[in-house]
Amino acid sequence: MPERVIAALAARGESLSTAESLTGGLLAAALTSVPGASQVYAGGVVAYQTPMKAALAGVPPQILDAGGPVCEATALALAAGIRARTGSTWALATTGVAGPDPQDGHEVGEVWIALAGPSGATAMRHDFAGDRQAIRTQTVAAALAALCDALP
Amino acid sequence: MPERVIAALAARGESLSTAESLTGGLLAAALTSVPGASQVYAGGVVAYQTPMKAALAGVPPQILDAGGPVCEATALALAAGIRARTGSTWALATTGVAGPDPQDGHEVGEVWIALAGPSGATAMRHDFAGDRQAIRTQTVAAALAALCDALP
Repeated sequence: MPERVIAALAARGESLSTAESLTGGLLAAALTSVPGASQVYAGGVVAYQTPMKAALAGVPPQILDAGGPVCEATALALAAGIRARTGSTWALATTGVAGPDPQDGHEVGEVWIALAGPSGATAMRHDFAGDRQAIRTQTVAAALAALCDALP
Repeated sequence: MPERVIAALAARGESLSTAESLTGGLLAAALTSVPGASQVYAGGVVAYQTPMKAALAGVPPQILDAGGPVCEATALALAAGIRARTGSTWALATTGVAGPDPQDGHEVGEVWIALAGPSGATAMRHDFAGDRQAIRTQTVAAALAALCDALP
């Protein structure tokens, strides 16, 4: 899947950035496992602790205050923020609860994935089952799939 | 190894951030694979393309102009930059050539790892053998080992 994303964006001359919370670098690591990824993948942030979503990805503090780290608005702001900071064509963002414990009233497995691109941004909610590793892995796959689906 | 780092820093009440180039998120992913990592690991950046080392990690452009992305000064500036942006106690940075091709006159496997902490910053050069995946994996292990060794 990362190979497909890199090849598709390379063919289009487009670029990608990432802003990750629960996946904690796994999405970036999947993309950069592909030789030649640097032609397409600009970079990204791992906005793991909540204040880092503002400091590293430019999420407005009032969004974090209103909805917390795990919500649609924060996912959208993470994607828009890293897209602006990197100047990339596309940006993917992940936030959610990998577990083992619920967080701020959200169950383990609640995940928001946002995709920002030239025509705006969208976010999708997923409720994944499994342990911490399974939830993180499913989130990476769903994020890459969301981008593949969005490419016209 | 990530478990040891998280446990040691948690016991000390200290925090950690990362700025990654060739490891592309693998170091962050290793740290965040540990349940409870958010107590210690603030976040970080994947400064993959060279201009992102300035944009996301605050590396002074004159350092990049003088030494390029793969050198001791850039590694040190990546670590110092992400430590300043996150306010973490410690910061680890990686830059180098994962391959498959040499880059900017540097051979595949040349890697610089920098560690910034309360007493300043140090950088170490490694020359790793193996393919892209092996070089990235060895870099993650060496970075975590460098931090373990530095904890008094």
